[in-house]
Amino acid sequence: MNNFDLQNPTKILFGKNQIANLSKEIPENAKILMLYGGGSIKKNGVYVQVIEALTNFDVIEFGGIPANPEYAVLMDALQVIKDENITYLLAVGGGSVIDGTKFLSAAALYEGKEPWDILVKNIRTLKGMPFGTVLTLPATGSEMNSGAVITKAETKEKFAMGGSGLFPQFSILDPEVIKSIPKRQIANGLADAFTHVLEQYMTYSVDAKLQDRFAESILQTILEVAPTILKDPSDYKAASNFMWSCTMALNGLIQKGVPSDWAIHMIGHELTALFGIDHACTLAIITESHYTYNLESKKEKLAQYAERVWNVTEGTIEEKALAGIKKTTEFFQSLGIKTTLSEYTDDYKGTAQIISKRFTDRGWKGLGEYGKVTPSDVEKIVEMSY
Amino acid sequence: MNNFDLQNPTKILFGKNQIANLSKEIPENAKILMLYGGGSIKKNGVYVQVIEALTNFDVIEFGGIPANPEYAVLMDALQVIKDENITYLLAVGGGSVIDGTKFLSAAALYEGKEPWDILVKNIRTLKGMPFGTVLTLPATGSEMNSGAVITKAETKEKFAMGGSGLFPQFSILDPEVIKSIPKRQIANGLADAFTHVLEQYMTYSVDAKLQDRFAESILQTILEVAPTILKDPSDYKAASNFMWSCTMALNGLIQKGVPSDWAIHMIGHELTALFGIDHACTLAIITESHYTYNLESKKEKLAQYAERVWNVTEGTIEEKALAGIKKTTEFFQSLGIKTTLSEYTDDYKGTAQIISKRFTDRGWKGLGEYGKVTPSDVEKIVEMSY
Repeated sequence: MNNFDLQNPTKILFGKNQIANLSKEIPENAKILMLYGGGSIKKNGVYVQVIEALTNFDVIEFGGIPANPEYAVLMDALQVIKDENITYLLAVGGGSVIDGTKFLSAAALYEGKEPWDILVKNIRTLKGMPFGTVLTLPATGSEMNSGAVITKAETKEKFAMGGSGLFPQFSILDPEVIKSIPKRQIANGLADAFTHVLEQYMTYSVDAKLQDRFAESILQTILEVAPTILKDPSDYKAASNFMWSCTMALNGLIQKGVPSDWAIHMIGHELTALFGIDHACTLAIITESHYTYNLESKKEKLAQYAERVWNVTEGTIEEKALAGIKKTTEFFQSLGIKTTLSEYTDDYKGTAQIISKRFTDRGWKGLGEYGKVTPSDVEKIVEMSY
Repeated sequence: MNNFDLQNPTKILFGKNQIANLSKEIPENAKILMLYGGGSIKKNGVYVQVIEALTNFDVIEFGGIPANPEYAVLMDALQVIKDENITYLLAVGGGSVIDGTKFLSAAALYEGKEPWDILVKNIRTLKGMPFGTVLTLPATGSEMNSGAVITKAETKEKFAMGGSGLFPQFSILDPEVIKSIPKRQIANGLADAFTHVLEQYMTYSVDAKLQDRFAESILQTILEVAPTILKDPSDYKAASNFMWSCTMALNGLIQKGVPSDWAIHMIGHELTALFGIDHACTLAIITESHYTYNLESKKEKLAQYAERVWNVTEGTIEEKALAGIKKTTEFFQSLGIKTTLSEYTDDYKGTAQIISKRFTDRGWKGLGEYGKVTPSDVEKIVEMSY
């Protein structure tokens, strides 16, 4: 097991009717900017619950944060924060709204000249404007971690950001919100959370037995509840297990003391930036080719995964590893998610070269748990995913 | 899954040489009271490492905190805190030293007249004197939770206490300390952590699939590393998995959203108070009789445990449940821990009545996940454990 530091101060309020407890978590004299997305919260009852809970607060609203939170939109929100002397941010939405709020938390107290630098220079935020979240879409885990991904539309680029000052002070997780989520977004959430676990698990062994088993536990739980929650999103038992699995998949716990990969996400982000493909779908596109291309360095863990998560008992290590990859692709497909790039766009030719060149241009030397997946390897992986 | 709130602010510094980072975690002008036990830290090198790391601080020492931290000794330490204007506490030891430090953290800022009330009136501590820990004995999980158990020697009583203000600010977990722990204490740590998980898991199902799997993960990891770490405590891989499993067994995570039992601990505490039997051994004495006596209400989860943790595949639910109980007892015995009361004392007769009467006298109506284990049931359970 590798050395690690772990600290996660976010308070989770999980369960039915927890939104009613919102007001207890925010300082009395706070002036709140409430951020949300395209307005689904006005249809599913969450908006009304939040407004009712905040009766005694001074609240200004900022809606319209898009999926893949866009820098220009966030800069408009930043202006509101400054004009209105906002002291507290409340994200009501999924990963995009929460990620956008994290950028605002950082930018609001940023002492440099240009908030853009937080992204391009990857400046870590040690102290941000305090914020909380009401999660409406389980998937990204952003509700209990300190990272975010922000998009710049003009250049079709996505930037990761974060820092210990960007944990939400609290996050409210009411599984009842899931019943009004469109099936496509539930499928995306399942695939996203599943891949988050894989990125932190499918590497080489450092004999971190407990971390491995925790990762496998989340994968098994997602697999177990996926058919139920897709069929009936109002099944509270399945919804609560789905929601808690998504949070635990990326709240930092399972990555402590182990190597992590994240190449699937790094490559996938480029597919979203280039084609606007849903984040989770880009992960489903890249996973099989990434694991197949890097079979030699990942086969032991892939075989362990096949054995423990998929009950594959027969075959050599390599055969089990390949069976694990195949099962993973089939799982994505069972969610209704297509797993090759050409199923999303006719304009896929040359994508491998474009993404590879982007990585080269940024001066990145290598992705993955060994830092050895080069831009040239990325080209081959993307080609395999056409 | 039941509703829950979760917040755990403790920072964990895990791994080799982490003690050297101690000074970064304590406020610069702190006046520190360093608390420890019987002096084993002076033999295993931890004392020297801590003192070296604290070169730039004003440190006063208080050694001699006994196993089952004793109220009278702690009151002496409280006097030192007041006389010396201590502002920060540092526990260097195992669960007893950390628990004692938690009582001091609470008592140092207690505004009532008599610190004893914190125990007998179970007053929750929302703000204590800040403290950190350097863990030298994995077992209790006290390094990452906000609870403690304090003993009063004269009346042979143990009292649970706690509150959200009693999380350590940080805990340093260096698995290298394990190589110098006597075998008996390692065995106790394994049994203690194992039972901590059982208390939060062996109840009735609320369909909290992820919590169940996390609990099973910790049990499986403890079982897997137990023979190795007992044979060779200097095996770093086994030591790190053992240490991290003990922390995760009782840092609050796996009990969120599920019922918990704790009857084994409540009864076990009485055996320690009456006979001075090691805490972990009292758990090993009570577990089989508690689960057998309450088989009807626990058999589904016992069978799941037998299947998933012990790979029991044959038999009815009841047969699997009984097999799970048997395997558990055999595990304790494999650690060299005796599992009946008469193996510890010849003076066991009447113990069941004494303990039952104690529960009655305290006005407790019922133990366990249903609150239905009465003093009369306790009498039968203890009798079964002779």
